[in-house]
Amino acid sequence: MVKVGQGPMGLYTISDYLLDVLHYGQIREVFGVPGDYNLRFLDHILTRSDLEWCGNGNELNAAYLANGYARQLGLAAFVTTYGVGELSAINGFAGSQTEGVPVLEIVGLPTTATQQQQKRVHHSLGDGQFDHFQTMHQELGIMTEVVSSNHAVAAVNRVIRKLVTTKQPAYLGLPSDLTELPVHPTFKQLIPTLFTAPNATPVPTVPFQLMQQAVYQAEHPLVVIGQALAQFHLGAAVQAWLAAQGFPFVDLIESKGVVTESMSQFKGTYHGKIANAALQAQVEQADVVFLLGSSLSDVNTAGFTHQFDPEHTITMTPGVISIYGETLVEQSPEHFPTWIQQLCQCQRATPMPSSAPTVPVRPAEPVPQPQQPVTQAFYQAALAHFVQPNDVVITEQGTSQFTVEDLRLPTDAEVITQPLWASIGYAFPAALGSLLANPNRRHLLSIGDGSFLLTLQELGFAIQHQLTPIILLLDNQGYTIERVIHGEQARYHDVPQLNYQHLLMAFGATPETYRFAKITTETELITQFRNLQHATPKLTLLQIRLQKLDAPKTLRKFINLLYDDE
Amino acid sequence: MVKVGQGPMGLYTISDYLLDVLHYGQIREVFGVPGDYNLRFLDHILTRSDLEWCGNGNELNAAYLANGYARQLGLAAFVTTYGVGELSAINGFAGSQTEGVPVLEIVGLPTTATQQQQKRVHHSLGDGQFDHFQTMHQELGIMTEVVSSNHAVAAVNRVIRKLVTTKQPAYLGLPSDLTELPVHPTFKQLIPTLFTAPNATPVPTVPFQLMQQAVYQAEHPLVVIGQALAQFHLGAAVQAWLAAQGFPFVDLIESKGVVTESMSQFKGTYHGKIANAALQAQVEQADVVFLLGSSLSDVNTAGFTHQFDPEHTITMTPGVISIYGETLVEQSPEHFPTWIQQLCQCQRATPMPSSAPTVPVRPAEPVPQPQQPVTQAFYQAALAHFVQPNDVVITEQGTSQFTVEDLRLPTDAEVITQPLWASIGYAFPAALGSLLANPNRRHLLSIGDGSFLLTLQELGFAIQHQLTPIILLLDNQGYTIERVIHGEQARYHDVPQLNYQHLLMAFGATPETYRFAKITTETELITQFRNLQHATPKLTLLQIRLQKLDAPKTLRKFINLLYDDE
Repeated sequence: MVKVGQGPMGLYTISDYLLDVLHYGQIREVFGVPGDYNLRFLDHILTRSDLEWCGNGNELNAAYLANGYARQLGLAAFVTTYGVGELSAINGFAGSQTEGVPVLEIVGLPTTATQQQQKRVHHSLGDGQFDHFQTMHQELGIMTEVVSSNHAVAAVNRVIRKLVTTKQPAYLGLPSDLTELPVHPTFKQLIPTLFTAPNATPVPTVPFQLMQQAVYQAEHPLVVIGQALAQFHLGAAVQAWLAAQGFPFVDLIESKGVVTESMSQFKGTYHGKIANAALQAQVEQADVVFLLGSSLSDVNTAGFTHQFDPEHTITMTPGVISIYGETLVEQSPEHFPTWIQQLCQCQRATPMPSSAPTVPVRPAEPVPQPQQPVTQAFYQAALAHFVQPNDVVITEQGTSQFTVEDLRLPTDAEVITQPLWASIGYAFPAALGSLLANPNRRHLLSIGDGSFLLTLQELGFAIQHQLTPIILLLDNQGYTIERVIHGEQARYHDVPQLNYQHLLMAFGATPETYRFAKITTETELITQFRNLQHATPKLTLLQIRLQKLDAPKTLRKFINLLYDDE
Repeated sequence: MVKVGQGPMGLYTISDYLLDVLHYGQIREVFGVPGDYNLRFLDHILTRSDLEWCGNGNELNAAYLANGYARQLGLAAFVTTYGVGELSAINGFAGSQTEGVPVLEIVGLPTTATQQQQKRVHHSLGDGQFDHFQTMHQELGIMTEVVSSNHAVAAVNRVIRKLVTTKQPAYLGLPSDLTELPVHPTFKQLIPTLFTAPNATPVPTVPFQLMQQAVYQAEHPLVVIGQALAQFHLGAAVQAWLAAQGFPFVDLIESKGVVTESMSQFKGTYHGKIANAALQAQVEQADVVFLLGSSLSDVNTAGFTHQFDPEHTITMTPGVISIYGETLVEQSPEHFPTWIQQLCQCQRATPMPSSAPTVPVRPAEPVPQPQQPVTQAFYQAALAHFVQPNDVVITEQGTSQFTVEDLRLPTDAEVITQPLWASIGYAFPAALGSLLANPNRRHLLSIGDGSFLLTLQELGFAIQHQLTPIILLLDNQGYTIERVIHGEQARYHDVPQLNYQHLLMAFGATPETYRFAKITTETELITQFRNLQHATPKLTLLQIRLQKLDAPKTLRKFINLLYDDE
């Protein structure tokens, strides 16, 4: 075993520098799929005792898994090969861009000589041009850099700085002849500076004067928690501010639990016109809305039916401050944390008096009826009781997302979902990535059989790394969310019916290492949930049989609003 | 059931027109994954009795499967949703572009109104711009068209014409509000014209005079069969010409069996300096080489070690005629068939006398040693005997491709592989697509365990559609081709060890519908192969255990040549 921070050849190289940077950024596992253009770089991972190579079943899964890891840890990296690898991953990577998750993709490229000589080599389009795939990533808004012999440390530094300051993903191309490029070890000194806050720019005065005024004077304020607060790790700061001021707040499906929902001021998860009446009333009567870190989308707002009156709304997103319908500031996204911290300096004279919560904290366990088939409604009620403090609940953007949105989460529990990019198949690998990054938190995955099919080979990854998610697999025989949208009985919504116990065994699970149950009745579900509350963590898959048209009520309302214009 | 050619709403629409066009092009099955932006289009498939919707486990698999289907049938179509769907598929689709396989992707887009109003909707990047993904496809060189209310029939016609005349893939965007756009039924009359040969342009005189001269005078001619002859369905024409002239010929790994290898003039599969000595001598002594339909790449040529002397070579690829080192003609790829037909008019005074074949036709069955573990060499010998006339042999571009290249295929057997794009995971879905398109041919798939992992969920597809490939799964515990390239014992080459019998059962196989055997000895392999020769077709998976470093000898030579410059 070679000394940490030194490559397989003994020299300090660009590969070692890159890995030192990742390690400084808290990364302990690197994901991906090997390919001939990246193998020498991978050697540098294997020689380290402080980083683990965790190969995936395919590249798309690696991209999803890295996304889940970065959501917990604030950074993740995965490695693909040129062309075929990076394009297999690109949908998952686009999701990191769209949702703002700082993932680095390291792409092994053909040698500099091959590129210069425009050779017709495998994994290229065969036209002698090697920048097509970088251009495609740029089209997605993803920053790309390529290591060259005189632009190596700088290339690494730029992508890392991008990740750290904007929380957006980045792409680093590493030609396979440059993995052993020597780097002067003195550059290691620079690494901590890559992770510092961006240079301070003066906080714009006017908007924050208006914010102070609003904080001071508001009679019916409402704070809306958006996903960028999670992205920039600002949940705790905002939570402390809310506690001190006594402000009521809501979150969105994109940001459930970013500020803990167990606080007394939590009013619910707001979802436009499908939110409950009390919540809608709260929004409508607000004299000031602080909309923090959300760029509202069709899914988040139930078809843009949100009732935030621009004239009473103060919006801060990474890059933009708008006050009362007027865009006052447009700056780089990296200043968002400073803005939020500045807002958190705004004080009332006295905290607002607390009002009664509109949603009960942890409802009672529902009473199961023997032999009664599980319904979506019963599943939702049982899950609401089952979720524990500090849990991570990952939901596929199918019926599960709508199941979870009405839950009031216990202390420090949070939800991971993907409401804008909304890529089917995301949730399972993302759950594994999140769990690997933070194994001390219990992870619940709520996912349908249709979604699970897309990326199921990561069962191999889960078993290999002894991960212990609780997979609540809603076996509703196809794409139920799509059935509700259109074509309830259409055959195109059917998927193959799997035997999940065989599947677990196929991927190497042994009776000692997994827990499986097929659940059809309410009693079976409650029994399993009760047993799990105190059981030893194991890879658990509960196959919960549901009728194929049994969907959350909110989903049906949502669909009506979303497709209103069609 | 609605009348064929009329949509679910009774009107004749652009969706019906598109499907009528595909049906005219021999398509009987349409692949893909449903999503909310494409559901109404899918309805038009379900109402027809002459087309079947065949949903896939995920979009990448759909793209691969469509590629296999198009290789048999000359055309294929698959449907994805906007953003997440098309980007999941894009690696497979890029392979169709790179290898020249005419696949149409139909992408369901957000409504025209949503796009015009620049709404922040799911599956978009959230920036109000909806053409990013089309631009990415264009970067790959793929033609894109989008249906609009006054450019609907024309958009369909253009993509189909592209597919038919250039054998390249194309992308058709269909906004979800336009699926029911009425189309005058009179346009149906046009459909046959979409499938006619391109307008004749005069064949350039000079090159073909030189070709006639070469055909007439050559003392040691050699014809090299390239993949574009398969792509443009010119194998039969060239085969007849070769038979009449008595010319010796070779094929390449990209084109094995395009002209049947059972002909006496077949000299082998040429692979640069890893070809056998007799074959290399044949190439070196050639006074004229006719290089037909191949753009030589690193893999095809074993690191550009081919010995075609430009001064003695006549090259025709789709778009380019070069003679003796001089590029004489550059035209649209669509004229390639005319050129080849013109070449096939060139005649010798008398056919060349035949020489002895250098490779035996169908070698004898190797004699198994009881208890002797199967080796790569034994597998290769057994496979050489096992392949039957008219078989389709699909090989993943791992060790399997090198196993197959030294086989001399029996009459009308052919190989499908992907030597330029070389995307791991391609072969299994492609085999299913090819088999579905041409169920009368026996399909053998040779694939490693590492490759199979990437796309294995299409086992569900195989079982659902009662497909009966013979899967020769080389269980060599990881990515053996990569081990040979670099890092023989490196952990990153390991993959989870699967239990394939459980896997088959997980996807719904029942004892009546599949055949499985785990093979470790030579005797077991020969016994299974013998049994299979006369057995009822069933989904068959033979798990053939090999040592993890046991690779074809040609692969090791190849690797040495390919990475010579590193």
